[in-house]
Amino acid sequence: MTHSGNSGPTDQPKVDGERLWASLMDMGRVGATPGGGSGRLALTDLDREARDLFVDWCRGAGCAVRIDRMGNIFARRAGAGKARSPAMTGGHLDTQPLGGRFDGVYGVLAGLEVVRTLNDAGIETEAPIDVVVWTDEEGVRFGSGMIASGIFAGIYDLDHGLACADADGKTMGEELERIGYAGSEPVGGYPVDAFIEAHIEQGPVLESEGKPIGVVLGAQGQRCFRVTVEGEEGHAGTLPMKRRRDALLGAARMIDAVNRVAFSHQPHPMITVGAVWVRPNSRNTISGRTEFAIDARHPDDDLLATVDDDMRRACGEIAREAGLGVDFEQTSDRQTVTFEKSCITAIREAAEALSLPHRDIYSGAGHDACNISACTPTGMIFVPCEKGISHNEKENARPEDLAAGCDVLLRVLLGRAGARE
Amino acid sequence: MTHSGNSGPTDQPKVDGERLWASLMDMGRVGATPGGGSGRLALTDLDREARDLFVDWCRGAGCAVRIDRMGNIFARRAGAGKARSPAMTGGHLDTQPLGGRFDGVYGVLAGLEVVRTLNDAGIETEAPIDVVVWTDEEGVRFGSGMIASGIFAGIYDLDHGLACADADGKTMGEELERIGYAGSEPVGGYPVDAFIEAHIEQGPVLESEGKPIGVVLGAQGQRCFRVTVEGEEGHAGTLPMKRRRDALLGAARMIDAVNRVAFSHQPHPMITVGAVWVRPNSRNTISGRTEFAIDARHPDDDLLATVDDDMRRACGEIAREAGLGVDFEQTSDRQTVTFEKSCITAIREAAEALSLPHRDIYSGAGHDACNISACTPTGMIFVPCEKGISHNEKENARPEDLAAGCDVLLRVLLGRAGARE
Repeated sequence: MTHSGNSGPTDQPKVDGERLWASLMDMGRVGATPGGGSGRLALTDLDREARDLFVDWCRGAGCAVRIDRMGNIFARRAGAGKARSPAMTGGHLDTQPLGGRFDGVYGVLAGLEVVRTLNDAGIETEAPIDVVVWTDEEGVRFGSGMIASGIFAGIYDLDHGLACADADGKTMGEELERIGYAGSEPVGGYPVDAFIEAHIEQGPVLESEGKPIGVVLGAQGQRCFRVTVEGEEGHAGTLPMKRRRDALLGAARMIDAVNRVAFSHQPHPMITVGAVWVRPNSRNTISGRTEFAIDARHPDDDLLATVDDDMRRACGEIAREAGLGVDFEQTSDRQTVTFEKSCITAIREAAEALSLPHRDIYSGAGHDACNISACTPTGMIFVPCEKGISHNEKENARPEDLAAGCDVLLRVLLGRAGARE
Repeated sequence: MTHSGNSGPTDQPKVDGERLWASLMDMGRVGATPGGGSGRLALTDLDREARDLFVDWCRGAGCAVRIDRMGNIFARRAGAGKARSPAMTGGHLDTQPLGGRFDGVYGVLAGLEVVRTLNDAGIETEAPIDVVVWTDEEGVRFGSGMIASGIFAGIYDLDHGLACADADGKTMGEELERIGYAGSEPVGGYPVDAFIEAHIEQGPVLESEGKPIGVVLGAQGQRCFRVTVEGEEGHAGTLPMKRRRDALLGAARMIDAVNRVAFSHQPHPMITVGAVWVRPNSRNTISGRTEFAIDARHPDDDLLATVDDDMRRACGEIAREAGLGVDFEQTSDRQTVTFEKSCITAIREAAEALSLPHRDIYSGAGHDACNISACTPTGMIFVPCEKGISHNEKENARPEDLAAGCDVLLRVLLGRAGARE
């Protein structure tokens, strides 16, 4: 059993871009926010409403729907070959508190559009096609995201996932029961032919280059730190400048320094300080303790380690010169993900066959696909998003780009699942 | 009617340092905090409790107590000369949320100790001596401090003071009524011979030089700013470094730059950034808007203006280079205060007469005395505070230094009020 991106039919049908857009807009109305986005935290009533809508649509498209114990939803379009492993696609329906209508949702509804297009064209595939909704990708409510796809891929235990609790102490297990999505199926543990996820880029590169398709090579590794700078509190009007041990001033110099580290290693690393916590954060008190968060990403694990070393050295020197203490606490360590070669090739060739301009790209954000790549061949298709804005009500994408990405998805899934002639 | 620091009796009685210390410790128990300080926000029940205790003590010492419409308390030890203007001393009983036991309180209770010492020694003065508690020096609760002493000095209108509201919308007028300290006396408008305030230094200079007495020449001018840096929000994992307009990074460079401005103008200016507000303050989002507060002080108004110019220029250059917007909003402008020469001389000569090591010093902090200097001859006596720590539960001072400052206060007040032989 071999698969290739070229194995799809040359007279492939086109997806219905208007139908895809309409389904995105319909879904976006569930938890619609004043600013034009969606707010559907995982396992809330709004999440249930979105799931119910998706399940209705899938049943209307002839799919059989299964739900596993983590609430992951699998809508299956049956294949002719009963023993074949499914070709899988999907995304997530939960969003940021003031999120957009595309992040995650596009992957789910592009999968549904593929099913509907195949139905309309009367195309039967050898392998089944599964459209998946992964539970809680965003991780806003229960502390960390992508747990459900991680359990599917064997990265986490089911018990860990069910026990994750929100700020009110409600667990994912309890909330799945409450909204009626605590399924009976085991989570993962069976063969999947491939997982292909379509997603908006969440960055500005494709838009600025006018390329509708990003062939995702993998995802950047990420190391996050909480850096604590210790100085000494003092009165802004009485402590002579030379006697100060100003933690905020030290932190400010470190923020500048880690930015310089990023520029010294271009083109790849992205280093961001997006959050600072100053104590006591009072106008007339010299800060005795300031903390800040570093988010460092690189598509090469070894080079990310070098960047890490450089940042620590730069901050340590600043602290020493200013008589401050500095401590790096690493809060996350996500290894680089490299997607499977046959999937990457299939996506690139599909874009070529459809005459769609494309470029190779790394994902800066994490996705369920990064987890799934641990257990099955995986690829991702990016489409442009307006000004690169994501995790924001203003998140937007052009209907024609969304349709183009869906056409690529259709071609790759047909290639994996095999059309019956 | 002339006054001189040398006019006190040469056989002046000494204050009772143990009694002064005991009264400070007793007062410190009102709103005592776990870390050994006091927390008495203005016009709270705890402030009332502290005021009641002071009024009891003063009545016990034979004083007549008046309260004005801003809640300022005047405890008067009568003078023999009925027509003489009072020699005034005092401070405040309100504190920072986690404040110390000395800031403000020392000025009040040193005044009380002077009264008690004169009583014990059977010394009658020509002019009355008033011990004052100024309402809300700290300005924590109602937005800006020293309003009540400012009204006394004719700087603000009474209506403005009574209308100042806290975060819950409660006005100072309402809260004065509630705690029973809305007096009937007019606020100020009558002659005062002099106002002398004893205070801890709130800085480390006297302690490090081993000098118990600071002869305060005046107070630094102060300009405060809220600086807004405008950039553009973006995703930490997807927006290439070169396309970023990172408001927090710009702010960090400006914080470093204004510190360099301070060092380029030493020895005098003090420039502090103690507070930063980052939007959205999220680890994985590039800040689109960061604000920070600058507190700049200098004992020379012209040089403070130069420092102001230099800071604006430095921040403007950083903003231009980084493609950011920057806006300086000046939130306060306190002119330099120079205390009255006869008061300064009297304090210096009293320290000499008592063989107490002393040095001239500027106040870095604002005090009610700075306001009162607008309407009457004013001086301040500083005593060392441990490690210069103030506005902090750990604020501390040595009993012998507090007694020494109180002895100087006694001598100066006796000189102003005139002992009857």
